[in-house]
Amino acid sequence: AKSYNITLLPGDGIGPEVISVAKNVLSLAGSIEGIEFKFNEKPMGGAALDLTGVPLPEETLTAAKQSDAVLLGAIGGYKWDKNEKHLKPETGLLQLREGLKVFANLRPASVLPQLVDASTLKREVAEGVDLMVVRELTGGIYFGKPRGFGTDENGNEIGFNTEVYAAYEIDRIARIAFETARKRSGKLCSVDKANVLEASMLWRKRVTEIAAEYPDVELSHMYVDNAAMQLVRNPKQFDTIVTNNIFGDILSDEASMITGSIGMLPSASLGSSGPGLFEPIHGSAPDIAGQDKANPLATILSAAMLLKYGLGEVAAAERIELAVLDTLNRGFRTGDIHSDGNKLVGCKEMGEEVLKSV
Amino acid sequence: AKSYNITLLPGDGIGPEVISVAKNVLSLAGSIEGIEFKFNEKPMGGAALDLTGVPLPEETLTAAKQSDAVLLGAIGGYKWDKNEKHLKPETGLLQLREGLKVFANLRPASVLPQLVDASTLKREVAEGVDLMVVRELTGGIYFGKPRGFGTDENGNEIGFNTEVYAAYEIDRIARIAFETARKRSGKLCSVDKANVLEASMLWRKRVTEIAAEYPDVELSHMYVDNAAMQLVRNPKQFDTIVTNNIFGDILSDEASMITGSIGMLPSASLGSSGPGLFEPIHGSAPDIAGQDKANPLATILSAAMLLKYGLGEVAAAERIELAVLDTLNRGFRTGDIHSDGNKLVGCKEMGEEVLKSV
Ligand SMILES: CC(C)[C@H](C(=O)O)[C@@H](O)C(=O)O
Ligand SMILES: CC(C)[C@H](C(=O)O)[C@@H](O)C(=O)O
Repeated sequence: AKSYNITLLPGDGIGPEVISVAKNVLSLAGSIEGIEFKFNEKPMGGAALDLTGVPLPEETLTAAKQSDAVLLGAIGGYKWDKNEKHLKPETGLLQLREGLKVFANLRPASVLPQLVDASTLKREVAEGVDLMVVRELTGGIYFGKPRGFGTDENGNEIGFNTEVYAAYEIDRIARIAFETARKRSGKLCSVDKANVLEASMLWRKRVTEIAAEYPDVELSHMYVDNAAMQLVRNPKQFDTIVTNNIFGDILSDEASMITGSIGMLPSASLGSSGPGLFEPIHGSAPDIAGQDKANPLATILSAAMLLKYGLGEVAAAERIELAVLDTLNRGFRTGDIHSDGNKLVGCKEMGEEVLKSV
Repeated sequence: AKSYNITLLPGDGIGPEVISVAKNVLSLAGSIEGIEFKFNEKPMGGAALDLTGVPLPEETLTAAKQSDAVLLGAIGGYKWDKNEKHLKPETGLLQLREGLKVFANLRPASVLPQLVDASTLKREVAEGVDLMVVRELTGGIYFGKPRGFGTDENGNEIGFNTEVYAAYEIDRIARIAFETARKRSGKLCSVDKANVLEASMLWRKRVTEIAAEYPDVELSHMYVDNAAMQLVRNPKQFDTIVTNNIFGDILSDEASMITGSIGMLPSASLGSSGPGLFEPIHGSAPDIAGQDKANPLATILSAAMLLKYGLGEVAAAERIELAVLDTLNRGFRTGDIHSDGNKLVGCKEMGEEVLKSV
């Protein structure tokens, strides 16, 4: 039987609850498909801070690097919000992305027919939305140097960051985006602010050049402010969106909320080689942590992405995706996606129902 | 009689059409209130590029600086999209903002009861939305140095920009935002990315300190990705939002689309002294330029903001605002906000109807 090493990083808040459920689903789907998983759980984020004093212990990063794929719950919480930068849970996440060199973040946002009413958008606007945001994840203003605090030439106190992209960074994320678009509807929209920023001008230039390698994909460009509007006006116009780290952070969250069911949305972060990082796009939700209220489906679907994009185990991935749809069709809903006529369940029970459908 | 000098910058696309209508409304409202306007029209944006080779001629900036207020139509168009940076219409707009030192950009986004169905959001979500985005306009990544193109230490081609804020820049925009919130519902939300960016950490620190001067205003902080979500999930939770230049660009456009009637939304850009700059937030809409289809109401409402915020002529401002509401109540609509049962009119006719209501 095939065997894979999976690093589990439960993290903070609802992270441990959703990871524990997703682990069971992964195990069962794997065993049916003849795949064995060895799970290795490590501390990360606020949990690691409390335990070891740093948000990403050496040992956690080493374990992650040596495994075949990493499944993360969520990190962060009020408790650590005022920490200095190097002691923030978020810093651990950025170190993990950097350490694993996962430069391509895939964030699907689609409206399931079963959940179209969960969107705050009108039914006719939300129905059928099915888009994929490809976000650059290890460059741009998140990592650019110089950065820090200081004084300007007039002695004023300043805080500063650098938005910087190298051509090769743009080229490699563009190729992932074109490949992604090719497997979907063949439409790619590149989002930038090339009317103002030099970093965006280079972005647009490189994406346009790489397009020549993908004549079958239809490329368009859009300014980020307009993209933020168009996602609200008519999200169905988009198929695949590619953008930089900070714009991707903003637009993928906006897109996810348009689906109305952020508790459903997974993500995959991939490098050119080595293990990928898979995580739900929702946060650690400290307000409902430990109450068995969290929606585990985003993490379960992240496990499906882990199988498909991380391990190439497509059959097991599809088994999980179908199990999630089947569970929704059988009427089970956690609080965040609940509406009249459905069966309200907690995190654990939702997990058990998915197991029945696997 | 009081007399003011107004610089008119029609600009590109639908700019000239909407400015010509707004000028008539301004004149009439002024004359009823005993105010005289001297209008001085100057080229700007693509129009200036075609005429003089630069997007903001010296003469235009000088005229603007010497006047009491500036009313701008819109700038930009496909024709100049591929121009080098210093020859882009957008660069002219940035030079104008910098030249006039208008660091505070006020962008109201409210859903009028008459137009609630124009929003793509469900009626119960859109109804009653009434928020104000206070965007920092002359700092941050739009103007930060160093910026440009070059090579990194490994010889890779790069494009780069600097996000930088000085404490005094944050303090002054924060004060405008607190003052604005105080005159509204007393709730201010400051949006940043302080979990990642040093520039945002300084932002949050300064805004928090300035808050001590406004104990009657309730301050909250939100990360920009969450704000992009919350605007879709429940826009009514916001009253006044204050944020930096690039986040303000993105969020104010998103907020405006949430109202569904971006053709209705004005903006004001103010400095500590000197003339303010007033413009609709919509673009130059080259696809409908010259066809008498544009909605002039955003520019007419910008003229009202000019009166209120630029000249302190509150009575004339309210006269215009009421005239716009009255015209809507009488059923007149341009194409962008038209629905069954209303009277579809063009740009000029809409202007004439507003004149009747002034
Ligand atoms: C927690 C934070 C650092 C992170 C980011 O900004 O990338 C999060 O918002 C995300 O999108 O994964
Ligand atoms: C045209 C462009 C430079 C401008 C900006 O980004 O500020 C516009 O989008 C706006 O919001 O006024």
